[in-house]
Amino acid sequence: MVTAIVLLTVDRDRIPQVAEELAEMEGISEVFSVSGRYDLVAVIRTPTNEALAELVTGRMLKVRGIERSETLIAFKVYSRHDLETMFALGMEGGG
Amino acid sequence: MVTAIVLLTVDRDRIPQVAEELAEMEGISEVFSVSGRYDLVAVIRTPTNEALAELVTGRMLKVRGIERSETLIAFKVYSRHDLETMFALGMEGGG
Amino acid sequence: MVTAIVLLTVDRDRIPQVAEELAEMEGISEVFSVSGRYDLVAVIRTPTNEALAELVTGRMLKVRGIERSETLIAFKVYSRHDLETMFALGMEGGG
Amino acid sequence: MVTAIVLLTVDRDRIPQVAEELAEMEGISEVFSVSGRYDLVAVIRTPTNEALAELVTGRMLKVRGIERSETLIAFKVYSRHDLETMFALGMEGGG
Amino acid sequence: MVTAIVLLTVDRDRIPQVAEELAEMEGISEVFSVSGRYDLVAVIRTPTNEALAELVTGRMLKVRGIERSETLIAFKVYSRHDLETMFALGMEGGG
Amino acid sequence: MVTAIVLLTVDRDRIPQVAEELAEMEGISEVFSVSGRYDLVAVIRTPTNEALAELVTGRMLKVRGIERSETLIAFKVYSRHDLETMFALGMEGGG
Amino acid sequence: MVTAIVLLTVDRDRIPQVAEELAEMEGISEVFSVSGRYDLVAVIRTPTNEALAELVTGRMLKVRGIERSETLIAFKVYSRHDLETMFALGMEGGG
Amino acid sequence: MVTAIVLLTVDRDRIPQVAEELAEMEGISEVFSVSGRYDLVAVIRTPTNEALAELVTGRMLKVRGIERSETLIAFKVYSRHDLETMFALGMEGGG
Amino acid sequence: MVTAIVLLTVDRDRIPQVAEELAEMEGISEVFSVSGRYDLVAVIRTPTNEALAELVTGRMLKVRGIERSETLIAFKVYSRHDLETMFALGMEGGG
Amino acid sequence: MVTAIVLLTVDRDRIPQVAEELAEMEGISEVFSVSGRYDLVAVIRTPTNEALAELVTGRMLKVRGIERSETLIAFKVYSRHDLETMFALGMEGGG
Repeated sequence: MVTAIVLLTVDRDRIPQVAEELAEMEGISEVFSVSGRYDLVAVIRTPTNEALAELVTGRMLKVRGIERSETLIAFKVYSRHDLETMFALGMEGGG
Repeated sequence: MVTAIVLLTVDRDRIPQVAEELAEMEGISEVFSVSGRYDLVAVIRTPTNEALAELVTGRMLKVRGIERSETLIAFKVYSRHDLETMFALGMEGGG
Repeated sequence: MVTAIVLLTVDRDRIPQVAEELAEMEGISEVFSVSGRYDLVAVIRTPTNEALAELVTGRMLKVRGIERSETLIAFKVYSRHDLETMFALGMEGGG
Repeated sequence: MVTAIVLLTVDRDRIPQVAEELAEMEGISEVFSVSGRYDLVAVIRTPTNEALAELVTGRMLKVRGIERSETLIAFKVYSRHDLETMFALGMEGGG
Repeated sequence: MVTAIVLLTVDRDRIPQVAEELAEMEGISEVFSVSGRYDLVAVIRTPTNEALAELVTGRMLKVRGIERSETLIAFKVYSRHDLETMFALGMEGGG
Repeated sequence: MVTAIVLLTVDRDRIPQVAEELAEMEGISEVFSVSGRYDLVAVIRTPTNEALAELVTGRMLKVRGIERSETLIAFKVYSRHDLETMFALGMEGGG
Repeated sequence: MVTAIVLLTVDRDRIPQVAEELAEMEGISEVFSVSGRYDLVAVIRTPTNEALAELVTGRMLKVRGIERSETLIAFKVYSRHDLETMFALGMEGGG
Repeated sequence: MVTAIVLLTVDRDRIPQVAEELAEMEGISEVFSVSGRYDLVAVIRTPTNEALAELVTGRMLKVRGIERSETLIAFKVYSRHDLETMFALGMEGGG
Repeated sequence: MVTAIVLLTVDRDRIPQVAEELAEMEGISEVFSVSGRYDLVAVIRTPTNEALAELVTGRMLKVRGIERSETLIAFKVYSRHDLETMFALGMEGGG
Repeated sequence: MVTAIVLLTVDRDRIPQVAEELAEMEGISEVFSVSGRYDLVAVIRTPTNEALAELVTGRMLKVRGIERSETLIAFKVYSRHDLETMFALGMEGGG
């Protein structure tokens, strides 16, 4: 599983809509509206690099209202949870 | 459930150790070593604000090697997954 | 009580109007026009996280003229005053 | 009443101690440990400019552990609360 | 006397006009076009905080062409000159 | 007369001492401890460029405690006051 | 061979098109869409400084959608590969 | 093939040594000392994500003199060259 | 001779035109299109401060396409060349 | 002729010494102590890229007191002066 955290600066008039649009996307497991310098944070979990690339530089680019995005790709995941299993169920449909 | 994303700048000599130390902490569901401007990203999921405060301004402050941390607290969570249930199991022990 | 400090960069033509609009909002206890890099600072005191979220990512987003906002949520409050009582009176109407 | 918001970057080993030390100081009505880029935010309410100057460039400068501070002085206060009365009680001892 | 230094970023087409407009304002003792990151620096000397607030968040806000302003309010003044007397003459008309 | 505004970041333990040391220097007409991102602002008024250079890259460099300084040299001065006369008295001793 | 790395911030609506347009240009050996603060990174390998200048301040300037570009010119190349030979083939047509 | 560009800020006393050390590492195809804000840029080409992670958060972390590194991972590569073949030779030994 | 280095951020569509326009101006001895964060660097050599002020806050302000400029005025010049003589010839026409 | 402008941040205790040391170096035509965010600006004029690289990543790196340097390499030079001839004399000794 390839995981990435995306820090998003969004047009203030479209924050809830962008959050909902992203949360519906295959490969995005969670979207948070957050305090601090960024407006939204998306957690991406995809099976392959290609799926990650297609999502970040394909579908996400088409979401109207995103002003800037900064993707932090995970090198290694440290967790007491078995995240693969927990989230893998949601990804059976591939992509 | 209170969720927060913590962006961490870490002393280069202690990145893996800090990641492991954090991942063992109650309340931290995942820690990623990441590409980009930050070194680690921790995802916190706690049952209450007090538990979040105690973790971020208590136990996490004591981890040697963290140079700067920026906590983004989630106002709202958007997800197709039932995260509460998925992660709630891990938090039965409270805090 | 959940407290947050919001640092606001505002369109120069609407600073007084935005300050007044915010000061009228349930959950905002004070708004200051300030010296320095920011234009306004709002102090939010709400009974619950949900109320904070609804205010920051709901009503405040609709205020015309706010260019950027950075919310600093309080983990812990240190004060010789009994703020809860002082401000709780103003929040009996909930929200 | 002269009000100011002070954004503080603090040595990670001394955040709780600095918060407590500041909260005990005459003229500081509240100190918050906060999420985001800053570590602490102090709200200052003093009767005169001189009291503000003495506090910020006198007593606060002597608190060990403050790395950087940025003071935002309020030009105007907008609030539904009668803050003067609420906080004036605490300032009868002057300074 | 309340003194403040205002660092101004100005629309390049209106730098001389903004400088002249500001220099005519009661309470502004000097305006410099400067080298470096800022375009203009204004030195404000007013008798009271209220006069400073009215100038900075009132009249100055209405000057067309100011993109960003950052006000540094003086806590203490150190000088071999008796500035109060030198500049007080110019402020007999109040404001 | 050559005028310059110097924005100073100073070691927190030496702010008052540095301010006093600078205020005693020939060519420095005022020093302010200020709110905001900088700690001190010095206003320099010297008869010649050479005097300015000697002050900024000579005597001021030797003041212990100045971490960073950013000098904004005035191209033009706009003022209703006759600053030349007001401050020229203080500079009869040259430099 | 003159090598340079160009960090590009691109209009979100034109990232793939700009990448393709650049990759077709003589002198650009690779273009990557990347994670992090920048959108694209181009690796330039030209035979002469003039060819580099003509590419960066000539043809690349005409590509619609590039908002900002920051060129890092290589002083020295360290590699176990014989890059000159590997890429020189592609540059026989000069430019 | 997984490609990444690493922007490096290096201790000025060790720039050439760090460049040579990195260039000898399996997975690093080129290292440039560069003009501009960064000191070195490394181009990484590895067969798998795991190899990239092991290199960036393993071996590279142990190189003395690197102050800060910012890794930009390539989502997609656009090139007229058949880079895979050109560089794949160097990676037959895996890792 | 008064010397200054001007760092210029320019509208990408007008970089060559702005460079040529500046290079024709009396008082500007050289203009470079450069790699890195800035687009152009101009070297100014004028006989007096007034000429420098007139050039930077007069003629240069009228050049269409300059987005931001940051002027670094030289306090002292260190050189093995007799620059005064070398460039003075070009300034006989004054200004 | 290869020209570059180097923006230097220098240890405050060594600004004049660093300026003199640089000005004596073959390939550096001028060094200015300057107002603004940087401490020194050096103008480099060398016959070849290799000479530039050897100077910037060789001799200049050994000068004690330089904290950070940012080299802006000239793509094109625009000037009414025949700089090549003016400065070429000083470079007959090569390098």
